[in-house]
Amino acid sequence: MPNLRPVLLVTGVLVAALGVAMLVPMTADLLARDPAHRADWTAFATAAILSIFSGGAAAAAAWGPIRALDVRQGFLLTAASWLALVAFGAIPFVLGAFDMTYTDAFFEAMSGLTTTGSTVVSGLDDAPPGFLLWRSMLQWLGGVGVIIMAFAVLPALKIGGMQLFKMEAWDTSEKFIASAAQYSLGLSLIYIFLTALCFVLLWAFGMPSFDALNHALTTLSTGGYSTRDASVGAFLTVGRAPLDLIVTAFMIIGSLPFGILLIAVLRGEWRRLAADSQIRFFLFTIAAATATMAVYVYARFDVDAFTAFRLSAFNVVSVFTGTGYATTDYGAWGAFAVGFFFCIMFVGGCAGSTSCGLKIFRFQVALAAIRLYARRLAHPHGVFVEHYNGRPISDEVFVSVLSFFFIYFASFATLAAALSGFGLDAITALSAAGTAIANVGPGLGPVVGPAGNFASLPDAAKWLMAAGMLLGRLEFFTVLVLLMPDFWRR
Amino acid sequence: MPNLRPVLLVTGVLVAALGVAMLVPMTADLLARDPAHRADWTAFATAAILSIFSGGAAAAAAWGPIRALDVRQGFLLTAASWLALVAFGAIPFVLGAFDMTYTDAFFEAMSGLTTTGSTVVSGLDDAPPGFLLWRSMLQWLGGVGVIIMAFAVLPALKIGGMQLFKMEAWDTSEKFIASAAQYSLGLSLIYIFLTALCFVLLWAFGMPSFDALNHALTTLSTGGYSTRDASVGAFLTVGRAPLDLIVTAFMIIGSLPFGILLIAVLRGEWRRLAADSQIRFFLFTIAAATATMAVYVYARFDVDAFTAFRLSAFNVVSVFTGTGYATTDYGAWGAFAVGFFFCIMFVGGCAGSTSCGLKIFRFQVALAAIRLYARRLAHPHGVFVEHYNGRPISDEVFVSVLSFFFIYFASFATLAAALSGFGLDAITALSAAGTAIANVGPGLGPVVGPAGNFASLPDAAKWLMAAGMLLGRLEFFTVLVLLMPDFWRR
Ligand SMILES: [K+]
Ligand SMILES: [K+]
Repeated sequence: MPNLRPVLLVTGVLVAALGVAMLVPMTADLLARDPAHRADWTAFATAAILSIFSGGAAAAAAWGPIRALDVRQGFLLTAASWLALVAFGAIPFVLGAFDMTYTDAFFEAMSGLTTTGSTVVSGLDDAPPGFLLWRSMLQWLGGVGVIIMAFAVLPALKIGGMQLFKMEAWDTSEKFIASAAQYSLGLSLIYIFLTALCFVLLWAFGMPSFDALNHALTTLSTGGYSTRDASVGAFLTVGRAPLDLIVTAFMIIGSLPFGILLIAVLRGEWRRLAADSQIRFFLFTIAAATATMAVYVYARFDVDAFTAFRLSAFNVVSVFTGTGYATTDYGAWGAFAVGFFFCIMFVGGCAGSTSCGLKIFRFQVALAAIRLYARRLAHPHGVFVEHYNGRPISDEVFVSVLSFFFIYFASFATLAAALSGFGLDAITALSAAGTAIANVGPGLGPVVGPAGNFASLPDAAKWLMAAGMLLGRLEFFTVLVLLMPDFWRR
Repeated sequence: MPNLRPVLLVTGVLVAALGVAMLVPMTADLLARDPAHRADWTAFATAAILSIFSGGAAAAAAWGPIRALDVRQGFLLTAASWLALVAFGAIPFVLGAFDMTYTDAFFEAMSGLTTTGSTVVSGLDDAPPGFLLWRSMLQWLGGVGVIIMAFAVLPALKIGGMQLFKMEAWDTSEKFIASAAQYSLGLSLIYIFLTALCFVLLWAFGMPSFDALNHALTTLSTGGYSTRDASVGAFLTVGRAPLDLIVTAFMIIGSLPFGILLIAVLRGEWRRLAADSQIRFFLFTIAAATATMAVYVYARFDVDAFTAFRLSAFNVVSVFTGTGYATTDYGAWGAFAVGFFFCIMFVGGCAGSTSCGLKIFRFQVALAAIRLYARRLAHPHGVFVEHYNGRPISDEVFVSVLSFFFIYFASFATLAAALSGFGLDAITALSAAGTAIANVGPGLGPVVGPAGNFASLPDAAKWLMAAGMLLGRLEFFTVLVLLMPDFWRR
C-alpha cells in the first residue's frame, strides 16, 4: 500500500486553489447589471468557502515535506486530484442559477475539467456571467493541467507510448531548463500568452469582450464550451469579420505540442516546429480532412467555394482536434458527413497539447508497426527498424501504443453498449460514447448532436459518460492501473 | 520479383477443380422436377467447361515440379487463388436463373467463398436447387480452405499472432503427423464427418433432405447462406423439433479449432479440448453473451424462459461466430440488442476454425498485454511474463496481435466511411462494413439487416464490400503485404 499522505496533501492544496479561483466568477456575477444574474454570486461564495476549507483541512492534516513521489503515488495523485477537482468544481452549478442536480453538475464539471465540452444546459444566452465564466475557466484550468501532466507525469509513468517524449522533456543537456517547475511555468506562460492573443484578436475583430474572453479560454484548451446555445455560429452574422477563421487557427495552435512550442520560443528555433514529425503529420491530415469535406460541401450544397472552405475548416478542425464548437448543424450534411465526423472524432491533436483523442503520434507509431510488420512478413530474414522523430521505436513502445488503441476501442464499445442499454438509439449511443472517450463534446444525431444537448439522458448514462471522459482524459492506464490488485501490494 | 510459375500452377489446378465441383449443382438441376429449374443446368455446364479449360490451360502453361514455396510465393498464392476461385465461382450466377450482373455474381461468390453469407438474392424459396447448392458449396469449400490455411499457411507466414499456433501444428514430436498433406487430409475428414453428422441430425429431426444438406454445408462453415429468405426461421413451425438447437450446437462446433479436434480424435484425448484455453474462453464468453441477451429478451418480451433462451442462443451464437443465420429479425429487439449484436459481430470463434472475425485468442493476447502493461506500470522494476496455453507470449506476438486489432478497426472505419459516402445511413454503413470485414453476413437496420438483403446497394459499394470480405478472410496482412514495394524487390 503506497503512502497516501503526499497524495492527500497535494490534492488538498489543489482543491483550495480551485476555491480561490471561484472568486473570479463570483466577481463577474457581482458586476452583472441584471439583478437575477447578480444573485448568482452566492453560489460561488459558498462553493469557494467549502472548497478552501475542505482542501485546506486535508492539506493541513497531511502537512509535511514531500521529498519525492514514487510511480504509484504519481498514479494515485493524478486520479485523485482530477476527481476531487471535479467534485468541488461542480458545487457552484448545484447552488447556482440553473438549480442543477448533483448528477448534472458533476457531468458539467467533468465535461469542463476534462475539456470535453458536452453540456446539459440549454439557455446559455441568458445565463449569469459567473456561470458561463466558471464553465470556461474549468476548461482552461483542465487544459493547463493536461499540458503539465503530458510533460511531467505521463512520460515518467510510461503511459500509452508517452515514454517517446521522455527524453525530449527531461533532456538534461538543455541547459535552459533549470527544473521541472521552471519548465511547467514556461509551459503555463506560453498557454497564457496564446490565450491572451486569441482574446485580443477576437475582441479586435468585433466579438464582445466577455464572449471573447470565454471563447479564448475554451479555444486554447480545445474545450468547446460556448456562451451561446448556437456556439460560435451565433457570432457569424452578416457583415461581421470571419471570427471563425481566428478560432480555427487557435484550435490548431491548441493542438500543437506545447513543449516544442516552448523550446521554439526560448531558443528562437522556429524551424524546429516545422521539422517535428508529429506537427507535420497533424497539419497534413487536418488539411486533407478539411479539403475532403470542403469538396463534398461545395459539390452538394449551393454555396461558393470560400464558404465551403470556411464551413469545412471550422467544423472539421473542431471535431478533429476534439474542441467541439459548431458553426452549423453538420449532422444535417448527409450520411457521408456523419460517417466522416464520426471517424475523425477519435483522432485528436498532438501529444503535449490540450487536445484529447488517440493523438497523432499514436497513429504514426501504429502505422510504423504495420509497415515494420509487413516488411518482416515479406522478408523474414531482413532486419528492419522504424523511427520516430529520428529515434528507433522499441518493441516496448509498439506494445504500449497498440495496447492503447485496444483499450481505447474496448472502452468505447463497452460504453456504447452500456448507453444503448438505456434505450438510446444506435447513432446517439455510439457518438455519445465516442465523444466522451475522445473528449470531443457534441455527438451526432438529433439528441446529442451539435444542435442538441445531453440533458435528456438518464442519470446513470451521465455518470457513465463522466467516467468515460475521465478515462479518456487520463489516458486510461492511469485509472486502470489502480484497479489492478498488484498495484496495492507490497 | 518472386517466381510466379508455382503460383500460376497451383491456382490453375484449383480453378479446374472448382470447375469439376460445378458438376454437382449441375446434376442437382438436372434432377429437379420443375422444368424452369431444370433449365438452369446449362449455367453450371458452361461455367464448368470455362473453369476446367482456363484452369487447365494455366496449369499446363506453368507445368513442372514444385520443390518448395518461399514466404512470398505463399502470400501470392493465397491471394491469387482465393481471387481466381471467386472470379470463376461467380460465373454460374451470371448465366443462371437470376440473370445476375457480374457485380452481383462476384459479390455473391465472394460472400460465399469467404463464408460471409451476405446475399443480394431475394426469392430463395423458388430458386433452382443447383443455384442453392452452389451457394452452399462455395461456403463449405471456403470453410475447408480456411481450416487448411489456418494450419498450413498463416502460422508459417506469422499472420496476426498466428505464430502462436505454429509449434502446435508442426510439432515434430507428434509422431502421428507424418506430413502436412496427411494432416490436411485429417482436418478435411473431420470437417466432412461433422458436416455429415449435422446433415443426418437435421434430416432425422424433420428438415427436408435438400435443406438439411445445404444447412449442414453452411453451418459447419459458419457461412450462413440458407435455402430460404427467412433463413433457419423458416423451418421452425409449431410442432416441429427444435432444429435451431441442433444448428446452434454445430455453429459452436464449427467455431472450434479443428487442429485440436483432430488431435483429440486421433489420440482419444478429449480432455485436451477442455484444457485448451482458447476453447474455454470461447465457451465462457458465448455463454455469458447468450445469458445476457436471454435475460434481456425475457424481461422485455412476453415469452417463456425456454423461448427466450432458444431465441437468444441461436441468434447470439449466429452473430458471435459470424455464421449469420437468423430465426427472427433481432434488429427489432430494441436499441440495446442492436448495440449488443453490433459489438459481438466483431468477435468470431477460435483460430483454426471456419469462423472469421478478430478471433478469441487475439482477445486473450490483447487482455494479457493490458494486464502485463498495467503490472509493469505499477511496478516498473518488477519482471512479469504472460502466458498463452502455458507458453510465454513474446513481444513479437503482442505486436502482431495488437497490430491486427489496429488494422482491423482501421479497415472497418475506412470501409464504413466509404459506404456512407454512397449515401447509406449510419447504421447501414457501419453494420455493412462490420459484416464484410468480420465475414458475418447480415448487417443491422432495415436495408441490410436480417430481414433485408444487399441487392439495393450501389455497385461500387458491392465491390468495396467484396474487397473487405477478402481482406477479413485472409487476415489483412496476406493482402497488405502485397501492396508493400519491399515485397516485390530483390
Ligand atoms: K472538447
Ligand atoms: K458468415
